[in-house]
Amino acid sequence: MKKRPNDFSLVKFSSMSALNTDLYELTMAAVYFERQMNERATFSLFIRSYPPNRTYFVSAGLAQAINFLENISFSAEDLAYLESLKMFQPDFLTYLERFRFTGDVRAIPEGRLFFVNEPLLEIEAPLIEAQIVETALINILHFQVMIATKASRCFQAARGRQLIDFSLRRTHSLEAGLYVARASYIAGFAGTSNLLAGRLFGLPVYGTMAHSFISSFDQEIEAFRAYADIFPERTIFLIDTYDTIAGAKKAAQIGREMAAQGYNLAGVRLDSGSMASLSRRVRKILDEAGLSRTKILASGAFDEYKIKEVLDRGAAIDAFGVGTKMGVSADAPYFDMAYKLVEYAGREVLKLSPGKTTLAGGKQVWRFYDRRGKFHHDVLSLKEELIPGGEPLLQAIMEKGKVKVSLPSLEEIKRTFQDDFSRLPERFKSIDLEVSPYLVRLSPELRKRQQKLVREVRKKELGES
Amino acid sequence: MKKRPNDFSLVKFSSMSALNTDLYELTMAAVYFERQMNERATFSLFIRSYPPNRTYFVSAGLAQAINFLENISFSAEDLAYLESLKMFQPDFLTYLERFRFTGDVRAIPEGRLFFVNEPLLEIEAPLIEAQIVETALINILHFQVMIATKASRCFQAARGRQLIDFSLRRTHSLEAGLYVARASYIAGFAGTSNLLAGRLFGLPVYGTMAHSFISSFDQEIEAFRAYADIFPERTIFLIDTYDTIAGAKKAAQIGREMAAQGYNLAGVRLDSGSMASLSRRVRKILDEAGLSRTKILASGAFDEYKIKEVLDRGAAIDAFGVGTKMGVSADAPYFDMAYKLVEYAGREVLKLSPGKTTLAGGKQVWRFYDRRGKFHHDVLSLKEELIPGGEPLLQAIMEKGKVKVSLPSLEEIKRTFQDDFSRLPERFKSIDLEVSPYLVRLSPELRKRQQKLVREVRKKELGES
Repeated sequence: MKKRPNDFSLVKFSSMSALNTDLYELTMAAVYFERQMNERATFSLFIRSYPPNRTYFVSAGLAQAINFLENISFSAEDLAYLESLKMFQPDFLTYLERFRFTGDVRAIPEGRLFFVNEPLLEIEAPLIEAQIVETALINILHFQVMIATKASRCFQAARGRQLIDFSLRRTHSLEAGLYVARASYIAGFAGTSNLLAGRLFGLPVYGTMAHSFISSFDQEIEAFRAYADIFPERTIFLIDTYDTIAGAKKAAQIGREMAAQGYNLAGVRLDSGSMASLSRRVRKILDEAGLSRTKILASGAFDEYKIKEVLDRGAAIDAFGVGTKMGVSADAPYFDMAYKLVEYAGREVLKLSPGKTTLAGGKQVWRFYDRRGKFHHDVLSLKEELIPGGEPLLQAIMEKGKVKVSLPSLEEIKRTFQDDFSRLPERFKSIDLEVSPYLVRLSPELRKRQQKLVREVRKKELGES
Repeated sequence: MKKRPNDFSLVKFSSMSALNTDLYELTMAAVYFERQMNERATFSLFIRSYPPNRTYFVSAGLAQAINFLENISFSAEDLAYLESLKMFQPDFLTYLERFRFTGDVRAIPEGRLFFVNEPLLEIEAPLIEAQIVETALINILHFQVMIATKASRCFQAARGRQLIDFSLRRTHSLEAGLYVARASYIAGFAGTSNLLAGRLFGLPVYGTMAHSFISSFDQEIEAFRAYADIFPERTIFLIDTYDTIAGAKKAAQIGREMAAQGYNLAGVRLDSGSMASLSRRVRKILDEAGLSRTKILASGAFDEYKIKEVLDRGAAIDAFGVGTKMGVSADAPYFDMAYKLVEYAGREVLKLSPGKTTLAGGKQVWRFYDRRGKFHHDVLSLKEELIPGGEPLLQAIMEKGKVKVSLPSLEEIKRTFQDDFSRLPERFKSIDLEVSPYLVRLSPELRKRQQKLVREVRKKELGES
């Protein structure tokens, strides 16, 4: 191990570096290279099981995954590092120097709903390429699907109230904060507090004020007045620094002063205490001051469960700032997403590891709707099958390493989500009740081929007859 | 909202951008600027409560936080974006153009253990600067402390067995994967599978092979032989693709072939099934083939709980690949870390929000040891106090925006952790038993001042006498 100073100014993180991968991807690639095993391989990326309380998944992250595949390469520094490991032959390093992704990609578009075992994405590429991109592809898609799915649950629980992403301080890295803002926007959030996400994705940005703002003034009411002076058209007072009800009364006083000058106090924010009863008392104080247009925003440990609970208890809350628990998907901070070889050099393959048996071959997902336009069931078929009456979900996105479609805007993706979500039967939208899983059938052809292949593999590898 | 294409090639994430913050930090800053409220402020960063099963925290992330403070700025694109929001006055934007962090920083060095309510870091800076850096500072320190703490629990559970970070595919973003590799290395891991982390931090890198490697060959044993040919000195066979015991026998066969050529099969990896019994059966197969030096590595949903369980059940496992559950701190994916104003313009401040009352004033933490050199208790004091017999934990790191100390290497930080961890009494190292919290006393002076200030604030803000 080369010793280097613990100097972060040397740490230049590049999301396009092909070193965003596990060592084993490169040692396997080196063996393939040496053996000239670089025929076309199909890998399928899917989720193996439902995390607690989940009954569907929201596709998200594809634009980033595609961008990664278009731009992945080994920089001079990356190659020098690999050489320094003294594990790889010079001709393999020369190959890596020219490494680009040249494969085909099919995927379920962002914003669409999908289910367990359905491939979110399939890659067909020379084996070495498809292997090296594995780790980053899972990393990118896993995170955004997980967050979009979590956000959609908050969207369901909020019953039309506005949701704002407040999670940046607790996301797992600053980069993660960007993708949380994007994925939650897709799945029903109105915007984010994250300014860099606002800049990079064109998302609406929102904000209020912090407790430190209040306490940096000698008195709370001075802090309110100072803020209203500068931002009279977008003021939301944080009212719980010392006492929420006392704070609400001061906010109402400044709200009346603002009204006298022709301005509307946009809102107040509650950040602690018993939200249902406090919000009703604060609503009364505001209404009695003639501030019925002033909204109540609540923040503090909200997620789908707490949103549902306070609304069930009659909270007078118009908008939620949703932070930590959405931004880390706290009740399910990882999904069981896998990226598995299903075909190599024209030969279908699978693994038989206990509980992790894979389905061989490239695939398509077909969705069937009932007469009211709601999802009825899906069929998982071999890629080349045609299943009459079904809507095929995987679309060709890249061919020979180039993007072949024009990617939808974030607004379009958001509409896709809303349309799909409105077609999902209500029983799958419960945030805390157990329901039988959505029906995903295997096509008869897929089932037949799978049974045949399992028998063949067991015979070949385990000597069974 | 400006509509922009959903084109990720436009998304240039910069971890040094001052836009890695919440909108409200800038609206508050704009008010301070307009009011010329930019006196020195002290902010204290600490954790408010213990997450489930945690009894201590491991300091980590300081090198990155410092690097952020040294380099934070608004780029031309950042400023153009802020201008496009039409919220900020030109003179404030001009101020931001020249924005740099010029404050002082004191902190508990990386690798040391600390406890609830103890400031991990304190910032003393002009109010605007201290406010704008809040979000990123919490983001950076929260994540690495959480991961180092989780990793230290795996280290404890593993009782000397080697641990490797395998989490990159499930960390929340690629950037997060880097910091997981670093933080887990500090807290007892031997290395990582993450190549970019290996390059950037000089960490040892490890790897084995994937199921896809096995299934891309016509037969499992061919895959083993091909790998051993290319990497005879660092071969670890994955043996569960079809059947673990059948795989172990094939691995033993190749191991014998390797031995005949003077090579040692480094290891085999188990990735599914009942680990305790399988590992003993595999150990027997290897031993009977004369491969007693071949190690058994296990992976698959390991964390401190599963490591403890399989070792309690007599597993013959020499090393663990620890992935997802460590890399997302699955049983506690967020900590309640706060960054609070405690002093402004020489005036001590606090907030009284229910359950979130803060302690006013800049602080120091003093550690006391018993006669055997073990931690006895800590004392939290005002910054200017001297507590005889205690070891002060917060050290001056930055002055006027510049780093004033030479930061330790990662190896030194790892030793600091190991030394501190060996001095933590055993009862705090249980991974699943409830224990009374480690004793953190408030100094009499801190307690007296706090009581006085609470009375004053309640009187001023709530009219209490």
